[in-house]
Amino acid sequence: MGKKLTKRSEDYSKWYNELVVKADLAENSGVRGCMVIKPYGFAIWEKMQAALDKMFKETGHENAYFPLFIPKSYLSKEASHVEGFAKECAVVTHYRLKNAEDGSGIIVDEDAKLEEELIVRPTSETIIWDTYRKWIQSYRDLPLLINQWANVVRWEMRTRLFLRTAEFLWQEGHTAHETEKEAVEEAERMMNVYAEFAQDHMAVPVIKGLKTESERFAGAVETYCIEALMQDGKALQAGTSHFLGQNFAKAFDVKFASKEGKQEFVWATSWGVSTRLMGALVMTHSDDNGLVLPPKLAPIQVVIVPIYKGLDQLDAISERVNPLVKELRAKGISVKYDNRDTYKPGFKFNEYELKGVPVRLAIGQRDMENGTYEVARRDTLEKETVPMDEVIAKIEFLMDDIQNNIYTKALDYREEHITEVETYEEFKKVLEEKGGFISAHWDGTTATEDKVKEETKATIRCIPIEGDKTEGRCMVTGEPSVRRVLFAKAY
Amino acid sequence: MGKKLTKRSEDYSKWYNELVVKADLAENSGVRGCMVIKPYGFAIWEKMQAALDKMFKETGHENAYFPLFIPKSYLSKEASHVEGFAKECAVVTHYRLKNAEDGSGIIVDEDAKLEEELIVRPTSETIIWDTYRKWIQSYRDLPLLINQWANVVRWEMRTRLFLRTAEFLWQEGHTAHETEKEAVEEAERMMNVYAEFAQDHMAVPVIKGLKTESERFAGAVETYCIEALMQDGKALQAGTSHFLGQNFAKAFDVKFASKEGKQEFVWATSWGVSTRLMGALVMTHSDDNGLVLPPKLAPIQVVIVPIYKGLDQLDAISERVNPLVKELRAKGISVKYDNRDTYKPGFKFNEYELKGVPVRLAIGQRDMENGTYEVARRDTLEKETVPMDEVIAKIEFLMDDIQNNIYTKALDYREEHITEVETYEEFKKVLEEKGGFISAHWDGTTATEDKVKEETKATIRCIPIEGDKTEGRCMVTGEPSVRRVLFAKAY
Repeated sequence: MGKKLTKRSEDYSKWYNELVVKADLAENSGVRGCMVIKPYGFAIWEKMQAALDKMFKETGHENAYFPLFIPKSYLSKEASHVEGFAKECAVVTHYRLKNAEDGSGIIVDEDAKLEEELIVRPTSETIIWDTYRKWIQSYRDLPLLINQWANVVRWEMRTRLFLRTAEFLWQEGHTAHETEKEAVEEAERMMNVYAEFAQDHMAVPVIKGLKTESERFAGAVETYCIEALMQDGKALQAGTSHFLGQNFAKAFDVKFASKEGKQEFVWATSWGVSTRLMGALVMTHSDDNGLVLPPKLAPIQVVIVPIYKGLDQLDAISERVNPLVKELRAKGISVKYDNRDTYKPGFKFNEYELKGVPVRLAIGQRDMENGTYEVARRDTLEKETVPMDEVIAKIEFLMDDIQNNIYTKALDYREEHITEVETYEEFKKVLEEKGGFISAHWDGTTATEDKVKEETKATIRCIPIEGDKTEGRCMVTGEPSVRRVLFAKAY
Repeated sequence: MGKKLTKRSEDYSKWYNELVVKADLAENSGVRGCMVIKPYGFAIWEKMQAALDKMFKETGHENAYFPLFIPKSYLSKEASHVEGFAKECAVVTHYRLKNAEDGSGIIVDEDAKLEEELIVRPTSETIIWDTYRKWIQSYRDLPLLINQWANVVRWEMRTRLFLRTAEFLWQEGHTAHETEKEAVEEAERMMNVYAEFAQDHMAVPVIKGLKTESERFAGAVETYCIEALMQDGKALQAGTSHFLGQNFAKAFDVKFASKEGKQEFVWATSWGVSTRLMGALVMTHSDDNGLVLPPKLAPIQVVIVPIYKGLDQLDAISERVNPLVKELRAKGISVKYDNRDTYKPGFKFNEYELKGVPVRLAIGQRDMENGTYEVARRDTLEKETVPMDEVIAKIEFLMDDIQNNIYTKALDYREEHITEVETYEEFKKVLEEKGGFISAHWDGTTATEDKVKEETKATIRCIPIEGDKTEGRCMVTGEPSVRRVLFAKAY
């Protein structure tokens, strides 16, 4: 396992980077800004995908797949969209390599230049709306509710595992509707689906809100978001859902014949979450000993470690453990019996602690004599001795209790880190000394937002949908404010 | 639904292209050679993925994810590998667009040229083995059994939906082993997994075999394959599994400390199937009326169409149908009750026939009076009237019976289309008049193989693993032959 993890209090950022690698979630690859998602990390992502995919299907969506490449000309069709993405596009210009004539190796074959350069998709609105033009003729073709699981590329200059990588995995929903009202409802529905997923599966409390104009998705009329708070007091945008108005329908000429027989432009939404959620998961719950995973997303929910001298003792233990493993699996609990003879129990304990396995059972000679297991929970590190015939009930209890406990802990932390301020001075002090979300009045202008960002690095994370809606005066300009918004430094 | 499908006997190729589009499986996109997989087609692919993924996990494999991009220099490290793929690589050379100074639009920003060009992965051996060097130190790290679901790009000049596209979806397994024996066993195991999947899920009979040297994967020591036969007498390679020897371990310097403490190169395999399987599925079973899907992969297994006049009649029918829908779903059968009032029953019948839904129930006034359903099966187009209380048992029977029937039908066709020949004249005659696999003796040389290919367009599809192993004389040269091999024209 190598040397100990850096403590969060020493260097939060270093702690995160070390933990992601040491817990076998991901690592940097030989390709600038691109990560390798390792099997243990990918198993968590698969559980996230499965839960989200089920929620998407339950809300009427179907999956499809659209091309990786986007012709350069498509990207240009929606003006603010191309402005938002042009500076971070990977561009394919050639389709062949050849041997250099001077024998210096493999080079790009300049004869094989593409007529039109292709962009590796940074998001798929343009290629999808170019397709929707063919799929939508009449109101009977609507709503069109489609999702895609895919990889996308945004050429970021500074990257961090899961949080910001040049290539990342995500899902992107793209829907088309008859009316503005339906599209707005869809965008809100998916924000709510994301919030439910974050809270119920990831055990990450989130605040639902609207982005300000300057933080909106390039091409959106309105961006809905869910914002989470990390243990270092910085916010993390965990998912966004966009009401796109008729912007893409107009750019790609997607019209439908209404019930009244009129040709009208279609209304659109798009919404996505990505492997960035893995970063949110790690940073919300984990501690100085390693990962803490919510049982609902843990690839291994229960690990059983035998403590023995000699293979006879191991055999006797296995005879007791094997039926338990079977019973747990029959109940849908994923369990690993780690009977590897090549590693010591202490090594195994450290490994599973680092990897955030929610429940660890140990069984040694005294347990064999007394008919017990030692049961340890990862979240609180508490241990207790449990009689054999109660151990399944105990585990079932812990699956729920750990899920709830880490959610409550994260929620308490978040609630303690929402501070209302009245003045800009107070704002700067809280931001400096405490961090977290700061609830303040704002005059609604981009100028004020920019000034705060420039002077403090804090941005408006969202205009919350729920909560206090009383009017006031902007903390910076003293101009009227219709309601408080949430500022924070953010990932 | 538009006009009728071209008949297979008129133009098989046109029939296929039309069917894939009309049955909503896929269509061409605005990007050269790249397809859009439509929701109905993607739902079939998802079922394939789920079944395969389960089989991979049951044989000890884990999923992971590696970068989309491969530095050009990586590709060059294994000599025959780069030779195999260099001519069909999409190359990323820049990472930014900008506005043209003359106002002519968006152009590639020449200042943002990559230091080293990146290849969009055509397959991932090189990036993965560059990673494995970090993951493998000791025999305790082996075997390493990893699979990846991903998109890959091969710049093909002539493309056809599913069968040959510039971008396609696939899975690629990449494993590392201590010994040659273990790696060979793994390559064979995965060929068997593919064969089992093709036969049990797709209802497509396949022949397992070895590729000749000239048809091997670029970088492989041995390529195992499964070969299927389409209804036009052409073969289709449905999956391959490669024993890579130590080629990639040597190219990327991946060594491990053996149990005896020696540094040794690792042994490797890789194996993959792709969205090409969708083409095999369509071409094996479908007929002039449309798709025929095996129940195990059909997104909709049963469709129920009400026949009524006026909404009162529809309500009465729905009252009878709704409990049936519930019961079928509880049994894990996917059922659609198509009560859309915007389309006529005849239109719906055509639609579900075209889309290959295995079982169609219809219920009209006479059925309401008699307590019956009309049950139609897609494979034979047979219809019968079934009493309400027997309909579930009937459907359960049909799920198995249709799966078995279309497999048997495909197997019979395949068996009738394996012809043994002794002379090259006979070979050409059979190839011309009957097609299918031709079992013939071959002298084992690439020269003879090339000659046959050039003169007849037939290739050696495989050296079958099972079957007749008697010696003979090459049909072309008369030289000794150790066993018969299978020739065919192929997709």
